[in-house]
Amino acid sequence: MRFFINRDRFVHDVQNVTKAVSSRTTIPILTGIKIVADHSGITLTGSDSDISIETFIPKEEEGSEIVRIEEKGSIVLQARFFAEIVKKLPGQDIEIIVQDQFATTIRSGSSVFNLNGLDPEEYPRLPQVKEDLLFRLPQDMLKNLIRQTVFAVSTQETRPVLTGVNLETEEDELNCTATDSHRLAMRKATIERNNESLSFNNVVIPGKSLNELSKILDDSSERVDIVVTENQVLFKMKNILFFSRLLEGKYPVTKGMIPTQSKTAFKLKAKPFLHTLERALLLSREGKNNVINLKTLEGGQIEITSISPEVGKVTEHIDSIDFEGEDMRISFNGKNVIDALKVVDSEEIHITFTGAMSPFVIRPTDHDHYLHLFSPVRTY
Amino acid sequence: MRFFINRDRFVHDVQNVTKAVSSRTTIPILTGIKIVADHSGITLTGSDSDISIETFIPKEEEGSEIVRIEEKGSIVLQARFFAEIVKKLPGQDIEIIVQDQFATTIRSGSSVFNLNGLDPEEYPRLPQVKEDLLFRLPQDMLKNLIRQTVFAVSTQETRPVLTGVNLETEEDELNCTATDSHRLAMRKATIERNNESLSFNNVVIPGKSLNELSKILDDSSERVDIVVTENQVLFKMKNILFFSRLLEGKYPVTKGMIPTQSKTAFKLKAKPFLHTLERALLLSREGKNNVINLKTLEGGQIEITSISPEVGKVTEHIDSIDFEGEDMRISFNGKNVIDALKVVDSEEIHITFTGAMSPFVIRPTDHDHYLHLFSPVRTY
Repeated sequence: MRFFINRDRFVHDVQNVTKAVSSRTTIPILTGIKIVADHSGITLTGSDSDISIETFIPKEEEGSEIVRIEEKGSIVLQARFFAEIVKKLPGQDIEIIVQDQFATTIRSGSSVFNLNGLDPEEYPRLPQVKEDLLFRLPQDMLKNLIRQTVFAVSTQETRPVLTGVNLETEEDELNCTATDSHRLAMRKATIERNNESLSFNNVVIPGKSLNELSKILDDSSERVDIVVTENQVLFKMKNILFFSRLLEGKYPVTKGMIPTQSKTAFKLKAKPFLHTLERALLLSREGKNNVINLKTLEGGQIEITSISPEVGKVTEHIDSIDFEGEDMRISFNGKNVIDALKVVDSEEIHITFTGAMSPFVIRPTDHDHYLHLFSPVRTY
Repeated sequence: MRFFINRDRFVHDVQNVTKAVSSRTTIPILTGIKIVADHSGITLTGSDSDISIETFIPKEEEGSEIVRIEEKGSIVLQARFFAEIVKKLPGQDIEIIVQDQFATTIRSGSSVFNLNGLDPEEYPRLPQVKEDLLFRLPQDMLKNLIRQTVFAVSTQETRPVLTGVNLETEEDELNCTATDSHRLAMRKATIERNNESLSFNNVVIPGKSLNELSKILDDSSERVDIVVTENQVLFKMKNILFFSRLLEGKYPVTKGMIPTQSKTAFKLKAKPFLHTLERALLLSREGKNNVINLKTLEGGQIEITSISPEVGKVTEHIDSIDFEGEDMRISFNGKNVIDALKVVDSEEIHITFTGAMSPFVIRPTDHDHYLHLFSPVRTY
């Protein structure tokens, strides 16, 4: 194998596939990234067997040459070193040569690296995914879907299926749900389907996979093709394939959990409410329980308090809008509500309670694309 | 005690004194910062008993009111909480009230914090420093002095005196030296003295103190007054006092260590040499020894190599300037030389060798304010 490649473009793609590589893998070959040079360009692959990322660098793009292939071939190189080396190379172009015994030479400017490569034949094949049924979403919307749900997945391995985000279709709508059983985030989006027969449920993508995918997505409206199979999901972008394993197990049915009535309801400005809770969390974080108390006062005022016996107490009064229903007091995990308010894009939120011991809901006031559900905390 | 204060200014000064506060102190009162309100303004103090920082906020500055004192007094408040609280307060101004039992109320906008304060009488007094003899340096130069020496102090407690930077005067010159016994950094600067009788040596300031001081210094040419006593040094800036304990023990005499002759000498462009070593370090770091090899070639070319048996080898050729003397090869700790090249401000450096087993010296070519000395590494 021998080829010349534009350094900046190569660095960019090497960094993308390296996102899938884990240093803690039990399969030695997966500490490497696979490089394949053929007549059309360079293909790079990284994988930790849960996530696999494949990118393609074409010989030419928009009329300018990116790669010059002198000899076809393939090699696997240690991802961690290789990514650091190419980033630091001095020249505008890089030459990569593979000779006998996988001996690899990398030249750029004044620099010559001789690296011990690994046998590309040992590198596992990527999952084969039938692409008959797929749906499409703009990149920026997929990125938002992830941002507004993935923070709520469980970080505990006691119920593995809760460490993922659940996807299900409802005609042209996609519902994404994440819950750690104390809070729940739900987000809807309209999708394009290539076939009306496309429908699925209980498709649970690991939160970790979605976080990595999110780093690759940009804020463009370019479409991502998404193919769902029994145990894999494939995200297809221009020159990038992102595969993730799906989580096994039955995702809980969450629809019935969301209260449809309310005893107390009001609106709040989202950002000031977030900042009030952040101040209250400064003290309740100290007690390690993150408990913040909310109490309704006369005239639609809301009192937020939190206490740390050692440090002290904070009290804050904020004005609600369109207060309806009974007076109430409730305690909740402040960090969970803060996490949700951080991903709210709307200026105003609607908060509805069904009692001090029942879950409460936060929704934006200007649309119904997402909602957040929280269990209260018993404080006595 | 009761006063009103501009939030932004207060946050700035609270952050400055908090730099001296350690959460790992064995003296509970030192986890707090001391606040004193008197007729002239607010004084804040933080200390970990090695470093103490005192800042003063005057009632007025440039004609605008910063503080309004309603009642004089003092209090000690938990530094970690207090610094986070004031940073997050919603109003432009903050009101602080201390009542019985050190109960402290902080009000700002919609927010009311009630904190448990500590008895200010328990807070230790700052060191008393006689200010008869002092010298002066511009802030930006002091910052450079620190940057160009402190990285070379020892991080090991086996010889505590080497964890500091040694200061000594030579008439109107200040010499600063740091060494971990494998490398040495020396920096000179011209000082202003208020009295020609000022002279000292073996004044060893802990590296940690200098790193904290550096964060407070800005890049202005405003003068810092420096007072040296037997076991303390005091840096006086406008409205800030910075005290540091000095290290006990005899600092090694380093002057005789610096070779005055050379067998081989040449010049190099500093930045390209730095980048070459950084690439070489990618491999030698893996062997945990950071060894990089340098070899002179014909025609003034220099070959830099490093090897990791598992990963591979890197070779790089660079051009030297004004090569003089014998051919040679030497091995050294690449990270140490990289650390030094990172603080070199000059475009070109002069590197002089006295043999493969003797220390070598790096100096800028355009002045003699600093030099760096390195022991070679035996590789066989």
